[in-house]
Parts: sequence; C-alpha cells; structure tokens
Amino acid sequence: MVKVIAINCGSSTLKFKLFEMPEEKVIASGMVDRLGLTDSVFTLKTSNDNSFEIKKDIKDHSEAVKLLLKELIDCKVLKSLDELGGVGHRVVAGGENYEKSTFVDQHVINNIKYLSIYAPLHNYSEARGMEAFRDYNPELPQVAVFDTALYTGMPKENYLYSIPMKYYRLYGARKYGAHGTSHRYLTDRAAKILNKNIEDLNIISLHLGSGASITATNHGKVIDTSMGFTPMAGITMSTRSGDIDPSLVLYLMKQLDINNPDEMADILNKESGLLGISELSPDMRDLEKEQDTNDQAKLAIDIFINRIVKYVGSYVAEMGSVDALIFSAGIGENDIGVRQSIVDHLSFIGAKIDSEKNHVRGEERDLTGEGSKVKVLLIPTDEELMIARDAYNIGYLSKK
Amino acid sequence: MVKVIAINCGSSTLKFKLFEMPEEKVIASGMVDRLGLTDSVFTLKTSNDNSFEIKKDIKDHSEAVKLLLKELIDCKVLKSLDELGGVGHRVVAGGENYEKSTFVDQHVINNIKYLSIYAPLHNYSEARGMEAFRDYNPELPQVAVFDTALYTGMPKENYLYSIPMKYYRLYGARKYGAHGTSHRYLTDRAAKILNKNIEDLNIISLHLGSGASITATNHGKVIDTSMGFTPMAGITMSTRSGDIDPSLVLYLMKQLDINNPDEMADILNKESGLLGISELSPDMRDLEKEQDTNDQAKLAIDIFINRIVKYVGSYVAEMGSVDALIFSAGIGENDIGVRQSIVDHLSFIGAKIDSEKNHVRGEERDLTGEGSKVKVLLIPTDEELMIARDAYNIGYLSKK
Repeated sequence: MVKVIAINCGSSTLKFKLFEMPEEKVIASGMVDRLGLTDSVFTLKTSNDNSFEIKKDIKDHSEAVKLLLKELIDCKVLKSLDELGGVGHRVVAGGENYEKSTFVDQHVINNIKYLSIYAPLHNYSEARGMEAFRDYNPELPQVAVFDTALYTGMPKENYLYSIPMKYYRLYGARKYGAHGTSHRYLTDRAAKILNKNIEDLNIISLHLGSGASITATNHGKVIDTSMGFTPMAGITMSTRSGDIDPSLVLYLMKQLDINNPDEMADILNKESGLLGISELSPDMRDLEKEQDTNDQAKLAIDIFINRIVKYVGSYVAEMGSVDALIFSAGIGENDIGVRQSIVDHLSFIGAKIDSEKNHVRGEERDLTGEGSKVKVLLIPTDEELMIARDAYNIGYLSKK
Repeated sequence: MVKVIAINCGSSTLKFKLFEMPEEKVIASGMVDRLGLTDSVFTLKTSNDNSFEIKKDIKDHSEAVKLLLKELIDCKVLKSLDELGGVGHRVVAGGENYEKSTFVDQHVINNIKYLSIYAPLHNYSEARGMEAFRDYNPELPQVAVFDTALYTGMPKENYLYSIPMKYYRLYGARKYGAHGTSHRYLTDRAAKILNKNIEDLNIISLHLGSGASITATNHGKVIDTSMGFTPMAGITMSTRSGDIDPSLVLYLMKQLDINNPDEMADILNKESGLLGISELSPDMRDLEKEQDTNDQAKLAIDIFINRIVKYVGSYVAEMGSVDALIFSAGIGENDIGVRQSIVDHLSFIGAKIDSEKNHVRGEERDLTGEGSKVKVLLIPTDEELMIARDAYNIGYLSKK
C-alpha cells in the first residue's frame, strides 16, 4: 500500500487529491487558491470529513508544495513523507510528441515549459509544480499526464487543418485536442461497464462542462475530437465560441478596431458561448431557470444542443457506427434536460434514453432506453484518478 | 416567346447567357473579361456555334452592356431590343432581408451597394451592372437573384454564432451561406427527377467546385449550410481553408506578425485548402494525377473527403434522415473517384453508389446503387437558368 498525489497547477492555483493505491481510495483533497497573490487560501478535506482552511500569503508553487506536505503530516493524513510513493501532474499542452504519460526529469520539465506557447496560462505553472516537488525530494517519482496525449495518434486528415502546410511545420498549427485524461477515463470505464473490450466498441464521449468537448473513439483508437489547436474550437461552451467562420474573427477585428489578436481571443474565450448568446449567464442552470420567459436563454440552450447533435452526427459518419454515447462533466453529469434533449435529437442512430433512469445527477448509470440501438451512459469523470493511476503505475511501480 | 438574359457581374468581368423563355433554350452566351483594364475581351457564342471575340478597351459595366446589346443585334441573335423581356442579375450578398429574388428599382440597387460590406468584390459591380441596363432602357424589367436568399429562413440556432449577440445586432454577424441559387436549382431538380414533392424529401446537396458548399434541405426548407458569414467557412476548398479553430487565425497573425486582418484573410482564402495542404495545386485533377506518388496530394484529397463526410453526417443528424444526396459543380459533376469515395464513407446511412453508372461526367444521372437506402444523384447545376427563370417570372411576366 502506498499513497500517491494528483496535482493540477494553474497560474494561481494548486489543486490536489491524495489516493491510497492500488485501492484507489481518496484520503484527502483540497487546493491552494490565490497563489502568488495576497490572502492566499489553503483548504484541505480528509476522507473522514475533517476539513480546514489556512489563510496566509503563499508566494509561489514551491511554497505551496511545502505547506501542503507539512499539513498532510500535521493532520496525520500522512505518517511521514516516506509514505508518498508518487506524484502525478496534469499537463495541458503536451504537443505532438508526448503520446502517453511520462516519467518527469529535467528534460521533460524543460519541454513542458517550451510547450507553454500552446497553453500560456497552464504549462509554465505545471512545470513549476514539478520543480517544487523535485526540490523538496528529488527521489520522489513524478509523472506528467498530458491532456493532449490521447490525441497524438489521430489520423493526419483529422489533426491537420486545410491551411498552408508550412504553418504546421513551422508553428505546430494542428489539432491537439484537450480533456484527453477525462475522455480516456470515460471510454475505459464504458468498456468495463459494458463488459467489452474497448477495441470492440465505437464510442462518442461528451465531456460537457464549462469547457466542453466531444471525442470519437473508434475500436479503442481516438480518431477525432471537437477541440482543436486550442480549447476554443468545437461546440458552444460557457464562454467560448466554439467553431465560427474564420473570416468572422477578422471581420470583427476590423469592426471593433482591435489590433491585438489576444484582445480578440479574449472576446471569443471569455465573452462568447452561452454567455454571449444569452446575454444573461454562462451557467446552464441559470439559463434553464429563465428559458420559459427569456428567448435568448432558450436560444443559447438550443444552440448548445444543436452543435452537440451535429458533432455527434459527424463522428458517427466518420466511424460508420456508434455503440455507446457517454455523458460526463458538470452539465453532462447533472443536467437531466440537456441529456434528454440531445438523445431525443439522435433518432437517426436509433438512440433512446430512459427518461426515468435519466432522473439522476452525478452517479454512474446506464440510461439506455428500451429498444435503443446505442448504449447511453452517464459516467462522472475522474481525471484525478487517472492521474493517480499513472503516478502509481508509471511513477511508483517502475521506480520500485 | 420572349428572350431574357442572365447576368453575372464581377469586379472586372460580366458574364451573360441569353435564353428563350418559357422554353428555357440557351441562344447565346459569353463574357466581357478585363473590364476596366486595358485589352478587354468580349466573347460571344451562339447556339448555332457561331462564336467570335472582340478585343478593345472597355472602361466600365455601362460600356460593356452597350457593347453586349449592340453585338447581340449585329450578329442577329436579337432582331431588336424589344425582344428582350427581362434581365436577371446574380447578387452575392443579399443580407438577411431579401428572402427571394426581387424586382430591381433604385431602392434595391442602393441596398445592394450597401450590402457590399459583406461581399466587397461582388456587390458593387453587380449594382453597376443593374444601373447600366437601367440607363440603357429604364423600362426593361430587371430582377436581382440573391445567392443568400435561400438561407434567410434557416432556424436561428443554425444561423447565429455563439458570440456576443451584440455583434449580430450591430454588425450583422451571422451565417448567410452562399451558392443558394445553385442549391435551389439542385433540390428542385432532384424532386422532379424523383417525382416527389420537395416537401416530402430530406436532401443534402453537395456543390463541389473550387468554392464548395453543402446544404441541408429538410422537407423543402433549407435548415443549414456549410458556408457561413462568408464563403470561407465549411469544407476544404481549392484555396479556402473552410472551418478552422478561430484561435488559430489569431495565433498565426501573431506568428506571422500580420497586423492587417485582410492580409490574414488572403492567406485563408487564396493560399489554403487543397493548395495549402498539397503545396502542389488547388485543382483536384492535378492532385489525383499525383496522389500515388505524392503523399501531400493524397492527404489533400483525404482531407477534402473527410470534411464532406463529417458535414453530411452532421446534417443527417440534424434532419433525422436523408432521402437524397446530390453531387454537383466542377468536382461533383466530373470527379468519379471523389463521388465514389464520399458515398463509400457514408455506409452509416446505407448509401450506395453504382460504380458503373458513376462512370459519367457532367450528365444528369441517377447513380443510386443496388440496395441503397438513399438516392444518389448527379445533377449538373445551372445557376443561369434559375436566374433566367426569375427574370422571366418575376420580371417579364409581372411587368406584362
């Protein structure tokens, strides 16, 4: 028995979840918020419902890691640091060369920093998180778990754009996808639930959170996904536009007299999606409350459903068939109406949802309706567990 | 019996086709090229295979119209100008208010000029073509045939983008579509060929030329189309990118140090698509010749097919079913391999093509394979005929 910790670093946050392995039992979780700012907050919750909060200025990821490990011992979650057998780090951008989770050394850390051109807000913080653990204990095995790894094996015709090829060669302009760790968990889990080999299944997984993506897994191989070069692409999201005519980006820059591409990206990342359409809220729950009296709230929901239905249709066409649809993440796990509506719009593949079974939030459940030709599954995603598994298998076990 | 003329004005061209109506017989066709430049060329071909060319400087659309009408009489295609009963003009951008072809008056001409914000190279020339005919004979009925008219009735969830709603209100940011006159011809014709009411059919029409678009017609109503705010969106084209992650547009501007959005648009309109991927040619015929020995030529074809298959899949999902697929325009009418490959990839809807019947170029033909659940039709498009019909029905007949 050993403990491993899953770490998710943002620019001003460090989230963690401590697991007992190989039992996959969560012992503690929490986060450091406002990292590098004043009034940082450290919160910790243990499996026996102990929880507390510490407010103090925490200047960087290194200090956050020290505090985290100290508190895990102080509150007796860990007897000593020797109990910690591995650390897994979520990494947003892994480029096209990291095809799976990877043991962390200085070379890997340098690469992750370099790849921050593709994820400026994330990669650098993630690399600093790794350095903080290394500085604390260079012997502790660390594993980088790339969100993009799942998508490195997509066929060329899906990951390349129809733009001059030199921009792929020079600037890495291609589809990288995102949410890969979640989709990997979901498809693995679906195969287990259905008691089949993943190689025998065509799966479309819908990770529908405030960021949302759809992935097509064809006989165990990911062949396509809705996010693209960045997470801006694909379906309508809380505040992201998803796909739009590329010329509209340029037209709006001219109309709005915007010279800085980052300013335009902010509009498409932060002011668009459900929020932009509804002019009310980026939160699906707010829109659903208002939809009977507010046309734009209703329209935002309709557009969200519409884009999802079209992506599912395009992936069924690519794969030739589909055996299972998976709903997951904030909206997918909790929004009964959205799930019902999506499956109702997928009559062409013979998908049916059981409206009674569908009255559930956040629980793993088979929602398949009677006579459905496609399995409809609700699976709460668990990226931290995937990270912990990789930390255990690739980090702890290989080091032992 | 009366004659009407279909006119298609570009910035430096004026194409024409003269029909005898209601017989729909083509009597003459031709064009003025290099309009407003030196060494302009006027060509005319009559139905009895008379053809000739005149080289002289033609300074504007007004002069071109005068020359055209003079030559039609000189070569005895028209006995007198009284025989000409109407003129139909192709108009690229009709905004969202022109829901069908419209009798031209000064108000309409002004509107078309105003709408040139959406089609800078086309609308203004088209308006000038109308003014030229009006100046020549103010009594001659003229009809504006809008490429966008077919798409004005799409549902809101398909024509609106997931961007701040104010950009729709302020700047008309929405999906307008294009090639509407072609898709209208194709779907009308398909209903006739299949001997059904268009209201009883779900049709996906593929206009695959150097510009290419796919349109979904649901029980006679167009509900979606692949081109967007401009013709840049949708599937891979000869030199246009089609859909790409909007953030990639912005990333490339930064990498390439481009400050002018028009410069970026030029890359995505003129250097992308088949040309950009293959680095060889924008012409599908060239790529097919090289595909066995040139990986990038093969890849460009694969991407072209891939994007089409995904759009068809998304439209089947939207409509719930599809009764007929139509192939048309340069590639769709002449490329046996592309048609075969697309239908082969559409097994999920039970579409089959008859490989023997498919050995045909540019002829109207039912290509449906044995046991196919979907009709597969090859229909050469005829936008000029649609324009002539509107000139006759809306122009000549209503004036009479």
